[in-house]
Amino acid sequence: MSTNDTDPLEAVRTRLEDEIPDDLVVSRVAYEGPKLVVYTETPKKFAERDGLIRRLASILRKRITVRPAAGVQLDPAEAKGKILSLIPDDAGITNLEFYPATGEVLIEAEKPGLVIGRRASTLREITQEVGWTPEVLRTPPMESSTVDNVRNFLMQERDDRRDFLERVGQEIHREPDGDTEWVRVTTLGCCREVGRAAFVLSTPETRVLIDCGDKPGAEGEVPYLQVPEANPIADLDAVVLTHAHLDHSALLPLLFKYGYDGPIYTTEPTRDLMGLLQLDYLDVAAKEGRTPPYASEMVREELKHTITVDYGDVTDIAPDIKLTFHNAGHILGSAVTHFHIGDGFHNVVFSGDIHHTDTRLFNGAANDFPRVETLVMESTYGRRDDYQTDQDDSERNLIELIGETAANDGTVVIPAFAVGRSQELMLVLEEAMREGKLPTMPIYLDGMIREATAIHTAYPEFLRDGLRDRILHDEENPFLAEQFQQVDGGQEMREDVAGGEPCVILSTSGMVTGGPIMSWLELLGGDPDNRLIFVGYQAQGTLGRRIQSGRREIPFSDRGGRSEQLTLRLDVQSVSGFSGHADRQGLEDFVGTMNPRPEEVICVHGDEASTDQFSSGLYQEFGMRTYAPRNLETFRFD
Amino acid sequence: MSTNDTDPLEAVRTRLEDEIPDDLVVSRVAYEGPKLVVYTETPKKFAERDGLIRRLASILRKRITVRPAAGVQLDPAEAKGKILSLIPDDAGITNLEFYPATGEVLIEAEKPGLVIGRRASTLREITQEVGWTPEVLRTPPMESSTVDNVRNFLMQERDDRRDFLERVGQEIHREPDGDTEWVRVTTLGCCREVGRAAFVLSTPETRVLIDCGDKPGAEGEVPYLQVPEANPIADLDAVVLTHAHLDHSALLPLLFKYGYDGPIYTTEPTRDLMGLLQLDYLDVAAKEGRTPPYASEMVREELKHTITVDYGDVTDIAPDIKLTFHNAGHILGSAVTHFHIGDGFHNVVFSGDIHHTDTRLFNGAANDFPRVETLVMESTYGRRDDYQTDQDDSERNLIELIGETAANDGTVVIPAFAVGRSQELMLVLEEAMREGKLPTMPIYLDGMIREATAIHTAYPEFLRDGLRDRILHDEENPFLAEQFQQVDGGQEMREDVAGGEPCVILSTSGMVTGGPIMSWLELLGGDPDNRLIFVGYQAQGTLGRRIQSGRREIPFSDRGGRSEQLTLRLDVQSVSGFSGHADRQGLEDFVGTMNPRPEEVICVHGDEASTDQFSSGLYQEFGMRTYAPRNLETFRFD
Ligand SMILES: [Zn+2]
Ligand SMILES: [Zn+2]
Ligand SMILES: [Zn+2]
Ligand SMILES: [Zn+2]
Ligand SMILES: [Zn+2]
Repeated sequence: MSTNDTDPLEAVRTRLEDEIPDDLVVSRVAYEGPKLVVYTETPKKFAERDGLIRRLASILRKRITVRPAAGVQLDPAEAKGKILSLIPDDAGITNLEFYPATGEVLIEAEKPGLVIGRRASTLREITQEVGWTPEVLRTPPMESSTVDNVRNFLMQERDDRRDFLERVGQEIHREPDGDTEWVRVTTLGCCREVGRAAFVLSTPETRVLIDCGDKPGAEGEVPYLQVPEANPIADLDAVVLTHAHLDHSALLPLLFKYGYDGPIYTTEPTRDLMGLLQLDYLDVAAKEGRTPPYASEMVREELKHTITVDYGDVTDIAPDIKLTFHNAGHILGSAVTHFHIGDGFHNVVFSGDIHHTDTRLFNGAANDFPRVETLVMESTYGRRDDYQTDQDDSERNLIELIGETAANDGTVVIPAFAVGRSQELMLVLEEAMREGKLPTMPIYLDGMIREATAIHTAYPEFLRDGLRDRILHDEENPFLAEQFQQVDGGQEMREDVAGGEPCVILSTSGMVTGGPIMSWLELLGGDPDNRLIFVGYQAQGTLGRRIQSGRREIPFSDRGGRSEQLTLRLDVQSVSGFSGHADRQGLEDFVGTMNPRPEEVICVHGDEASTDQFSSGLYQEFGMRTYAPRNLETFRFD
Repeated sequence: MSTNDTDPLEAVRTRLEDEIPDDLVVSRVAYEGPKLVVYTETPKKFAERDGLIRRLASILRKRITVRPAAGVQLDPAEAKGKILSLIPDDAGITNLEFYPATGEVLIEAEKPGLVIGRRASTLREITQEVGWTPEVLRTPPMESSTVDNVRNFLMQERDDRRDFLERVGQEIHREPDGDTEWVRVTTLGCCREVGRAAFVLSTPETRVLIDCGDKPGAEGEVPYLQVPEANPIADLDAVVLTHAHLDHSALLPLLFKYGYDGPIYTTEPTRDLMGLLQLDYLDVAAKEGRTPPYASEMVREELKHTITVDYGDVTDIAPDIKLTFHNAGHILGSAVTHFHIGDGFHNVVFSGDIHHTDTRLFNGAANDFPRVETLVMESTYGRRDDYQTDQDDSERNLIELIGETAANDGTVVIPAFAVGRSQELMLVLEEAMREGKLPTMPIYLDGMIREATAIHTAYPEFLRDGLRDRILHDEENPFLAEQFQQVDGGQEMREDVAGGEPCVILSTSGMVTGGPIMSWLELLGGDPDNRLIFVGYQAQGTLGRRIQSGRREIPFSDRGGRSEQLTLRLDVQSVSGFSGHADRQGLEDFVGTMNPRPEEVICVHGDEASTDQFSSGLYQEFGMRTYAPRNLETFRFD
């Protein structure tokens, strides 16, 4: 090292001090992942200078957070009293913790809005009065063990995480080696198939992995992580997760087994949901006698390395790459992911999975960007004839089918993903019963549906406006309606339910690849008065797809583990229009109304016919370059 | 290692012994690159069993060579007498060397055919009489320092090479890890441009680099060797060179600087030509004050690692890849390269540079293969309007232009690649003068043209039938015609020539990017009676292309190294039809008559318009999938 080398962070501090008035004192600067944290002994003066932080952020081209330096904080006991006096009682504070190492105080409350105050006025008051920086979390209106566990775990790992975030920050803000001369995308999975989403986005400086999922119905088919573009895994600069579904997230923990030690960027709800789904994934593998690809310890590693980013926050994830998440309308926390590369050199958007129009749960997917040249686009319903019924018609149809079954004393069973479609159906059924379109009857939630629903209530900001407000008022929270009953009594309870009054059962797995839905088919499948209703996409190779296509003899393991055949006699129906995915028209509209219009579209996440037909459709409709690649191909943009 | 592990070569030997009659004795088996060498104490008995070796080769699926074991050889002095008595005097033996380590005797002769005898009868006799295995080389009819140097160097390195070949053989014949599930091709250069040819062909088991050239007129633009698909360079399994031109070979020695220690497969003439051109490349770089990318030591490393393969010999280069070279008709030793991958899984052909129809020097490119699904195809003259004149018309045209200039007391200067076009022109001019269509006048060869010509005469088997015969008879060898004069007197001689009688000058470099052609332009460029005739492709960015496009003011460095402008007043003409490349029609015919027809064609080695237009032309004409990729893209086949 030459003697001219200075600590780059020291250089940032010098630069910062040059820019601020002399009466502001900076005691320390530190990276916390993408953010630069400025510790000051004069926090009030910082706060008084209107626009100073914004100006510094723009000069240094970094996100900046100012916190009072150690030593200016009140003693925690005293601070606690002060804080409680500043926050209205209605806020419902459930937890208050002080972290001397960073000068932060964590405030968990049922109504975080009241903690924050109008235009964050209460937060500012707290900082100025007690010298601690408040961090506010919502206490979920429905208790969620996932949310609790994740938060507790992260609190417990707080010191380790601080070191991790500092290391990541230094990597992000390193001097780049040179200009961006090219951008490449390599497909490690998810091409001409639905499943094992995984893409490498690379530049001469940086390698980012986007998603790392499994393939439902084809356990052996995992992303091609062994190819040179992804290796060494340990040297990847960042991992980005578009949403929690297992076909995007299942194998992320594996990266840590392979030595990865860097950040995973995703939204806050996705972080919690992926943990829930991955632990269940391990559970299912164990129950089916398969060797899980990683231990649950790796899920904790992954959580420890997760950096959450809100929709709309432009975030540096490498010297030459800025990431921005946008609402995708598909499931809670799902993101359309925008990469701005090399200071105006190129912009790539990964759609992830999207729903183009508004649903009961979410606003439609965002498709408005400062710039976009390349779009990597899902094509689940990309065939020419993949048009779904209107949601209104679908709802009427579903309600009619359920009403009919109930009138015949039958029971309706609906295989559903725990995350997304279940909550949408709960909203439909709750409304229909409230408005008298359906007789009120029990709706049993089996598998992780209740838990997933609780997570939704922890992040109402990610839901549609009207729904958010209803969730925040207990008496109107549709998810708390009495008819929703958790199946928490195991097989015995299922037998009781199956032998009892007409009801509706929502059960995982959504593609009938295992889970409690298997028990329900066994208990209810023999009676022609019962009804099985598919409401979501059934991937090729799954039992759900086979039943949907007419198969009625299905393999079954009895209690003793022997394999039997079960003949389904119940009525089988499919109701489209509830998918979390855009249909062909929605996909086309998403691309066609995208602003600006991308120059090239890479169609993935659909079977061969879907990606092919969607790709040529887009070309014919809009004249852009389109591709339906195979796995293991690399595109280069410049 | 478990105790069950056996030496794989020992296993091969056991297998071999199971297959042969008991009276045949195998004393040792060893790999020599792709070949399995069987040393036997009973060589005569091996030779007597008709078809045994062929049968063994087919059972073991390896190329097999049988050599007498150590101990069965006569003493060299005695053997030498015996050998000389078996070979007719006419053969013109110039060298005879014994290699006890392998039991081989090297015989260099002016007429190798007489050493070999009818159906190799003389060779067999030698083996049986003296116990040494003869290896026969042709003594070139024109002395070539390159051929001499390469052969001497390889003889001197013979022991090292034996170890190297054994190591390579073990790698080639290792047990593969599993089935071939995919084949990929990554473009490291040569896309939408002419130059820096470099491709990675990879399978789950193997990575092969094909070509590694520079880009004429753009020294900084080298193949993207730094991308993951090519790294670590040291772990590449094999390198294959299609032909010696620098846009394919210039940077091969660099691989050894980066730690590569494996084989380079190419034809024998390409091995010699590439050495010649690379050393000149270093020379030019030094003269122009650029830092050469590697030292000449690396060229020696490369030679030491080169394994030559004849046209038509199917050669294992990895457990899952077989390589076969075919005549490409472009320059001496140039090869259309066929890869058979994974036991019938996929077949990829790299055209390299081709000439589709016969020329004076070569037969047209081969396009008949057992199987081919994917073709990586040159597109130099791929534009819709890239039609060249018939060679007959071109020759008439050229002869007329030269005759006219001579009649006006002017001199003709023709920039030409040392390798290929120069020899073609020599044949045209020699014939025209012999037949009286042109007055006989001196034809000066400047740069490495004479040396390159001598190399052609060392490998007449690679030339067209009629030409081969003429070369083998001194009195008819067109390259030995009196009017051909080597410029071996430096600048002084050039000044004399320029001030003297009308003549023709063939000089490198072929694209006027440096070399003696610069001096000729300086000496002859000011006189409007002189003529500059372009006969070859001029790449974008080269001075040749700029002059061809009408530019007459050209930059020049005088002796003192200062930069000056030179104004060209001589007449500038272009005569098409002499290119070493197929024209648009030839390219189309090559693909259209290929047997079998490839399913997809990747168009490279042409500027953007050429690759684009050729790619859409092929699609429209033949309906196959076609691509005009960018550098750094990866295709996957399966
Ligand atoms: Zn999804
Ligand atoms: Zn998905
Ligand atoms: Zn999906
Ligand atoms: Zn060439
Ligand atoms: Zn070339």
